[in-house]
Amino acid sequence: MDERDGASGPGLSEFDLIARYFAPLAAGFPGALGLADDAALIDVTPGTRLVATTDALVAGVHFLPDDPADRVARKLLRVSLSDLAAMGAVPRAYLLVAAFPTDINPDWLQGFAAGLAADQAEFGIVLAGGDTVAAGGALTLAVTALGEVAWGRELRRSTAQPDDLIFVSGTLGDSALGLAVLRGEAPSLMAAARAAARDRYQLPQPRLALGGRLAGLASAAIDISDGLVADLGHICAGSGLAARIESAHLPLSAAGHAALAADPSFLISALTGGDDYELLFTVAAHDADRVSALAAALDLRLTLIGKMTTGHGVRVVDADGVDITPTGSGYRHF
Amino acid sequence: MDERDGASGPGLSEFDLIARYFAPLAAGFPGALGLADDAALIDVTPGTRLVATTDALVAGVHFLPDDPADRVARKLLRVSLSDLAAMGAVPRAYLLVAAFPTDINPDWLQGFAAGLAADQAEFGIVLAGGDTVAAGGALTLAVTALGEVAWGRELRRSTAQPDDLIFVSGTLGDSALGLAVLRGEAPSLMAAARAAARDRYQLPQPRLALGGRLAGLASAAIDISDGLVADLGHICAGSGLAARIESAHLPLSAAGHAALAADPSFLISALTGGDDYELLFTVAAHDADRVSALAAALDLRLTLIGKMTTGHGVRVVDADGVDITPTGSGYRHF
Repeated sequence: MDERDGASGPGLSEFDLIARYFAPLAAGFPGALGLADDAALIDVTPGTRLVATTDALVAGVHFLPDDPADRVARKLLRVSLSDLAAMGAVPRAYLLVAAFPTDINPDWLQGFAAGLAADQAEFGIVLAGGDTVAAGGALTLAVTALGEVAWGRELRRSTAQPDDLIFVSGTLGDSALGLAVLRGEAPSLMAAARAAARDRYQLPQPRLALGGRLAGLASAAIDISDGLVADLGHICAGSGLAARIESAHLPLSAAGHAALAADPSFLISALTGGDDYELLFTVAAHDADRVSALAAALDLRLTLIGKMTTGHGVRVVDADGVDITPTGSGYRHF
Repeated sequence: MDERDGASGPGLSEFDLIARYFAPLAAGFPGALGLADDAALIDVTPGTRLVATTDALVAGVHFLPDDPADRVARKLLRVSLSDLAAMGAVPRAYLLVAAFPTDINPDWLQGFAAGLAADQAEFGIVLAGGDTVAAGGALTLAVTALGEVAWGRELRRSTAQPDDLIFVSGTLGDSALGLAVLRGEAPSLMAAARAAARDRYQLPQPRLALGGRLAGLASAAIDISDGLVADLGHICAGSGLAARIESAHLPLSAAGHAALAADPSFLISALTGGDDYELLFTVAAHDADRVSALAAALDLRLTLIGKMTTGHGVRVVDADGVDITPTGSGYRHF
């Protein structure tokens, strides 16, 4: 880990900070060299390819300043783990960049490190290295997650085929609902629904077990970070195809059903809300039964929501076949 | 590359930004998947270990807001490449995190991408993935550099032996001098010296060729990011040894000699100034001739500056043997 500090960086002792909060997270991984060397050494299993992904989270943009520190840490890791899941990879290690405000609270750091430790145990990963810097602005965090996938077993976005069926794991729109709850914008929900939605926003579940089972079954896969329509759009663009989604089939949680009952516009959140981190994947029609078997084996909801077709773009239709495609698709600004 | 954007992130189209400025930097590296997938695929050469390092730079802390964008990009890469050099690794690819202010200038982005492209060509690396986010604060950049080193050939900090000789590449203190020049604090220097020092601050030279030749010769190595005394302190702490440096032997550039003539306190900069990114390494006394031969082969100054001893800590003595160890050692805040 690199404790290089800024020439004009005030206050924070990077060295102490690494020793106290982060070095324990590298214990048991010899290649991390105790975070005391210039770089980490990682031995990639023969016959596998290294899978590398980087994601940044900024306070006030990707998480709320009031979010508990341990949940910020876990979301940070899980966003990258979700990318590994979407490629069918097994996580191995991660590198951390943390640009802390100079007035960062030790309690916050303690909670942050505890969150990393909890998810290291849950997902079998270790901290291999990183860099901490003192910066004046908003807390900015980034993780580079490293995983492995057996040669030729990697999942891609760009390999869907016409007439493939489109499946999604879990439920949609919960994270957008959780963000609304945290912002005080979803007053009509019951307490349990509010808590469930908030948990989905703060603590997404990377679908690693599912991703690891999709090789040889899914023709294409992506994780839903930008929203269903936007991410399905990436599969369409990469594969040179179109997609048709039936809104009546979108999987909703109990909280989602309650939100939809209270406000029909929740459907837009389910279609375009980001941060769900479910896997969206395509499967040849003759393999539909295998998806059902996989759902049972994993005890995970896997829902058929539409079909790939020739053409381009994503179209959403309601139960009457009326086109209800949202004009804004996901978080991006076109 | 991940174009996931913030739920409340204003203005910037991450997708366009990646397509326009960054996707061209991934051309020719199939595993980058055109920056269009969830993660990058990297095949590690059999018989080698992956070497991974992450460094962050923050505007106003690690570079000056007025520094040219192409030089910011190149420094960003070179700081991480220097870590790979210190491990004896060959660079392969990198992942980029960029938290751009929302009012980032397209000209700045163009220059930044041009700087990355220039150094990709110079050092034989490619952009494999990354994440761009729009953030309100200071421009924050991070690179994860990935390299390879043959099994058992990696250089470490913690393996110096008593009586080993201490060598350093290039010259010391130039980057600190360059920062002073850029801040208008070094008025007495001639224009050529000012320009040379500024170039060293903005465009450090990762000593990759040297690092690649030190396996089997150096007993320990580190790059000088925090300053000679601080980084030699890391070798001492890791190796359980002390070090004695003779200040009269410190290698200075022409600009450094001029600065020392104008102000004797420049010696402190040479001892503690950060950002030089030279390699500091230890060698068994009987191998000193091999270091001379290597210096000739690489056409690179390699200077004997001291010796490892038993004990702990770094001691600096002048030509009369008087202890002149600086009390503050490097950038860190103890």
